[in-house]
Amino acid sequence: MHEIRYFDNAATTSISAAALDAYTKAVEHYRGNPSSLHQEGREAKAFLQQTREDIAGLLGVDAAALTFTSGATEANAIILSSLIWKERKGQVILSGIEHPSVSEYSRLLKQLGWKVTVLPAPRGFVQKEDLQRALSSETRMVSIMLVNNVTGSIQDVGGLVEVVRTFEAGHNNRKIHFHTDATQALGKIRFDLKSMGVDSAAFSAHKLHGPRGVGMLYNTNAGIESLSRGGAQEQGLRPGTENLGGIAAMHQAIKEAFSNLEENFEQVSSLNRYLRDRLTFLPVLSPPENCSPYILTLSHPTLPSEVFTRLLFDQGFCVSSGSACSNNAKQKSQGVLSAMAFSPQLAKNSIRISLSKDTTEHDAEALALTITHLNLEHA
Amino acid sequence: MHEIRYFDNAATTSISAAALDAYTKAVEHYRGNPSSLHQEGREAKAFLQQTREDIAGLLGVDAAALTFTSGATEANAIILSSLIWKERKGQVILSGIEHPSVSEYSRLLKQLGWKVTVLPAPRGFVQKEDLQRALSSETRMVSIMLVNNVTGSIQDVGGLVEVVRTFEAGHNNRKIHFHTDATQALGKIRFDLKSMGVDSAAFSAHKLHGPRGVGMLYNTNAGIESLSRGGAQEQGLRPGTENLGGIAAMHQAIKEAFSNLEENFEQVSSLNRYLRDRLTFLPVLSPPENCSPYILTLSHPTLPSEVFTRLLFDQGFCVSSGSACSNNAKQKSQGVLSAMAFSPQLAKNSIRISLSKDTTEHDAEALALTITHLNLEHA
Repeated sequence: MHEIRYFDNAATTSISAAALDAYTKAVEHYRGNPSSLHQEGREAKAFLQQTREDIAGLLGVDAAALTFTSGATEANAIILSSLIWKERKGQVILSGIEHPSVSEYSRLLKQLGWKVTVLPAPRGFVQKEDLQRALSSETRMVSIMLVNNVTGSIQDVGGLVEVVRTFEAGHNNRKIHFHTDATQALGKIRFDLKSMGVDSAAFSAHKLHGPRGVGMLYNTNAGIESLSRGGAQEQGLRPGTENLGGIAAMHQAIKEAFSNLEENFEQVSSLNRYLRDRLTFLPVLSPPENCSPYILTLSHPTLPSEVFTRLLFDQGFCVSSGSACSNNAKQKSQGVLSAMAFSPQLAKNSIRISLSKDTTEHDAEALALTITHLNLEHA
Repeated sequence: MHEIRYFDNAATTSISAAALDAYTKAVEHYRGNPSSLHQEGREAKAFLQQTREDIAGLLGVDAAALTFTSGATEANAIILSSLIWKERKGQVILSGIEHPSVSEYSRLLKQLGWKVTVLPAPRGFVQKEDLQRALSSETRMVSIMLVNNVTGSIQDVGGLVEVVRTFEAGHNNRKIHFHTDATQALGKIRFDLKSMGVDSAAFSAHKLHGPRGVGMLYNTNAGIESLSRGGAQEQGLRPGTENLGGIAAMHQAIKEAFSNLEENFEQVSSLNRYLRDRLTFLPVLSPPENCSPYILTLSHPTLPSEVFTRLLFDQGFCVSSGSACSNNAKQKSQGVLSAMAFSPQLAKNSIRISLSKDTTEHDAEALALTITHLNLEHA
């Protein structure tokens, strides 16, 4: 039995000790339902609101713009499914490299009469010209992720938003909602929601050493309406009793990630460079620039990814043949890689190595060595 | 400052020590994403599946019928919003006493062209004849809750399902989906999903000393399609990385509740009887029979519920003027009470006392005494 070496942090990370502690403290201390009007309820509500304000402070946004959800999938769903309310159907523009929690809405929206335009992203990047060309007087929403979960490419979301705002200005200022799935960005790269100018963004706690089952939606567009207000929690955007423990733990995880962001970024960048330097014999699908150092996607010249990953699993390495968020992850990652204009062969043989602050040099050395050996054996 | 005495367990309960322990153990031990194919992922997946089977065993259903969600609100939403896929609109029948997470779908469904029929529930009970009369060849779904959250009335869901099945048989067996929101029933009263014959049911963990942010959907109808498959987790019904810690904690809470169900039921019933006996000077809105002992809703002859509850809050008692799941809970509870044909005056002055296994005789005595005094003061 080999030691387990975990390189699948883009799928999920381990909860930090402090985040788990925050969970425990919150569920032990705040026993009331924040919607209840008695003392226990008011204390829970005050804690919820304080946590919202603290997180908003870290993100540099207004607390009122933050809605707690069960994760990024739900945050994306709130935005995409809000279109179901619109009596007049229009056009939605998505990048071809979105996570399934966004891209899978295409089918429903098309069935409901929407036009869905999918933008290519050659080598990982949506081109402003392509977005510009796709915009029309019918466009109601654009959804382009910030950090791609398959290769780590970082979109110039600010620049893409500008294209949309310029278009709006030239077309009677009819509102086009710009959403970004920022799940792989939070706590890993610096970004500023306000200066990017997005209308909404989705986040998940478990990608940055917070708990699973909790995330956030940032939204400043009052025109977004949830499918159901349910119990009217979270300004009516996300009904259901709030998961105070999970929210407290997410807050702790964000705090930790933000206070060590540069330090972690440097450390992970150095491991990423090390792996790139040691594995020059493999084509790299992650772009050399404008790429999150937390993700490194490679391809093997001959071995299909399920074979290559299996060989690595057998040696105790946890890597991914694609986004984990799918039982058919490989096929979906291939779709994303194909939208990036990588050859079918490169896409078919891709493996994703994803790092965290907990990844050690020793882990990286062992991985580089093992891949080198496997490559020689299967050359 | 008075000692806090908590009588709002229908809003939320405290997590049990064992459930919190199960949460901690699961998040510390299962670090992988169940959708990942490597060892950490496979272990997480095996644990997820084992937990699903264990819970299914306790409920007497097939594991494949259980989908983990972020709570009952989401479980209800999956069923109700699945209608959005239907190209041909029909009729949906809801009881007038549904939780907002069900009833709030009326507006969307109507906008999309559905006919929504709302059944009265005199004194808390939906009448079979009313359901029978409401059924039509256009009926596609019926949603009637098992235990009402405002008064505790227990519907004869098995009998109501039978009405629907008989209608189906007489109308070319065209499927009518029967959903029940069983949130206030799980771990509190005995019920059997299979013998009731429902197609689906919704549950939440935090109502039975499990964690917030996790629940379940029981569903046996393959025709139910989620709005988005997202990452295809949970048989495509509920995308998003599974909240293993929350699921493990919910399992623990269900185990505890089930193994002590009769004992807890007896204890709570005895406290409920005690309160009813001591508070005969107040009209009781909870029915004398077919009612969950966990909920006792009363009305004050003259004091509006916000005044009465406030007077109780000031003495340290946490009670509710309605379902907590709403910032405007009172109004919504009044709507439910009005569907139960209680007078506006009775509805306006209602307070809900909700018990748990942790409620003590001493708590009940103190509450009865305080209500008696308040009543004399404000007679």
